[in-house]
Amino acid sequence: MKIMEKVLKNIEKVDESQKAQMQEYVDGLLKPMGSLGVLEGIAVQVAGIDPELFNKPTKKAVLVFAGDHGICEEGITSAPQPVTALMTNFIANGKSGVGAISRQAGADVIVTDVGVNATLDNPNVRNKKVRFGTGNMVKETAMTREEAVQALEIGMETALEMIDKGYNVLATGEMGIGNTTPSSAIFSVFGNIDPQEVTGIGANLSSDLLDKKSEVIRRAIEKHQPDPQDPIDVLYKVGGLEIAAMAGAMLAGASKKVPVLIDGFISSAAAAIAVKMDPCVNDYLICSHASAEKGAQKGLELIGFKPYLYMDMRLGEGSGAALAFNVVDAAISMVNNMGTYAEAGIDVV
Amino acid sequence: MKIMEKVLKNIEKVDESQKAQMQEYVDGLLKPMGSLGVLEGIAVQVAGIDPELFNKPTKKAVLVFAGDHGICEEGITSAPQPVTALMTNFIANGKSGVGAISRQAGADVIVTDVGVNATLDNPNVRNKKVRFGTGNMVKETAMTREEAVQALEIGMETALEMIDKGYNVLATGEMGIGNTTPSSAIFSVFGNIDPQEVTGIGANLSSDLLDKKSEVIRRAIEKHQPDPQDPIDVLYKVGGLEIAAMAGAMLAGASKKVPVLIDGFISSAAAAIAVKMDPCVNDYLICSHASAEKGAQKGLELIGFKPYLYMDMRLGEGSGAALAFNVVDAAISMVNNMGTYAEAGIDVV
Repeated sequence: MKIMEKVLKNIEKVDESQKAQMQEYVDGLLKPMGSLGVLEGIAVQVAGIDPELFNKPTKKAVLVFAGDHGICEEGITSAPQPVTALMTNFIANGKSGVGAISRQAGADVIVTDVGVNATLDNPNVRNKKVRFGTGNMVKETAMTREEAVQALEIGMETALEMIDKGYNVLATGEMGIGNTTPSSAIFSVFGNIDPQEVTGIGANLSSDLLDKKSEVIRRAIEKHQPDPQDPIDVLYKVGGLEIAAMAGAMLAGASKKVPVLIDGFISSAAAAIAVKMDPCVNDYLICSHASAEKGAQKGLELIGFKPYLYMDMRLGEGSGAALAFNVVDAAISMVNNMGTYAEAGIDVV
Repeated sequence: MKIMEKVLKNIEKVDESQKAQMQEYVDGLLKPMGSLGVLEGIAVQVAGIDPELFNKPTKKAVLVFAGDHGICEEGITSAPQPVTALMTNFIANGKSGVGAISRQAGADVIVTDVGVNATLDNPNVRNKKVRFGTGNMVKETAMTREEAVQALEIGMETALEMIDKGYNVLATGEMGIGNTTPSSAIFSVFGNIDPQEVTGIGANLSSDLLDKKSEVIRRAIEKHQPDPQDPIDVLYKVGGLEIAAMAGAMLAGASKKVPVLIDGFISSAAAAIAVKMDPCVNDYLICSHASAEKGAQKGLELIGFKPYLYMDMRLGEGSGAALAFNVVDAAISMVNNMGTYAEAGIDVV
């Protein structure tokens, strides 16, 4: 518990005075007030997190966490469970979607196995396996409370290590066949809404299985009665190992004043856990895309985020967040490279 | 008329077989079918335009055209007309929004004066002035038909010159105080809809002047009766010099099989002109952001485009298109850097 205690203790509110100062500066740039929209908002947010980010190049990484899900045995996924191991290797070897998009954005991809149901003998995968996949949550809790904490701490350690290595903008990604199911469960618990409202087709589930997927989630929630006031309770009962690790990475980023980009639906569920653990984390998280997964937008709304990339993407892996690195860099470029009315000797009315 | 004839003669349909081939390739990449959404669509579109774009680095430029608008004397803009000259210089000197965003995206900005109502003594501005601003379209046509053709050809010449210099992905941008007004007029004519439906606040027009702006457009259209079947008729009667030049650049891009990114509202109006001049152009244009300007989305719908960046931006200058260069590059990176199921020895069902 040492890492978690330290991380949680170090999370502070963002600096509102820096935000106000940046808002004033942005309002003085050579453009109609507010006309750069989301870029302005991100610049102000980044200034509140760490104004030094405007004074050095960004060093970006997507932290991908991989884990398996016992719930797969209920037959509510389109791909079989072994695809997790297969895809984790592809991601680690730079052959996946997040790899291609990260390359364009100038970001690295760091892959950590927190719970894949296979031994991955790949030097590009960091082996931090907590257990071989979660339990089937309609029969047992997904993991123990201790395992949830362990997975959270692996996410924290990973982020802290990368921040030590100089990464100053992070994104979260994942691989885990079946992981839209625990994500829907998490939002269903936190939002106190029926699973159906936040349950979608994942990676191309046929529509006749969609009701079954909602029903499975409903049963798991009824069985374990996760306490929405206790995010770790939710996490271990109906969550996932990679979701825990992503939440940990978000908390660690916040503790070090490093912005962390949310990806799609699963990443949003991790964000919901992190924000429930410390509401201050919210201001360190930067939204990215609206996943095409049903429930993704609802999920983001529940934690107060508004996406701006509508790419119809639903790959996961951190691919949407990787694309949004460009937007963060553009916001920083706006601040660093635009002229101001003051420099131009123009009075702004 | 020589350039225009040549450009129009050289515009061909995109290569549907290359598109089909790319679609098949994209479907075989290591991801659930369709899960990279817009990136997949752009990859297929680019393959239809020129498959060689996947075999070399992109060289990107925003072509910014500047012009003034006589309609400003009706008092329906928030900024005074001289701001066009001022901002054109700032854009050319790299101090504007499009400059900062282009720098992030690795793109150059090329600024051409087609009709600023001032002599710009700036070595960074290409002087191709057709006239000192358009006429006030409630009193007279915005320009003569010959001037519209001249401005179209300047856009063509500029694009052709840049393509000769090796630029292989272009975007269109503009500066022109008052130019949301002719843009609304163009969509109103083409869509046969009341100006009010496509008239917004431009650069922060106060809401009490919005009705006046619509009314001015209504009067101009009533007076000149532009023929929606004759895009040059629409252009010279209620258009703008920079709008004509942007349309010309789009046509020239298509004639050389170079993709051209549409920016926001004004760029969409130019796209409407270009597509009316040759419907084949449509497939060479790549959509970018949903401008926050009222009417922007309606405008894009009228010409069959769906934006994917929802940045709440309404700066113009080509700033949204510049941001979208990253998306085009990401689509190309997806094709070039992802592994395939075939390589991995996996049969796709």
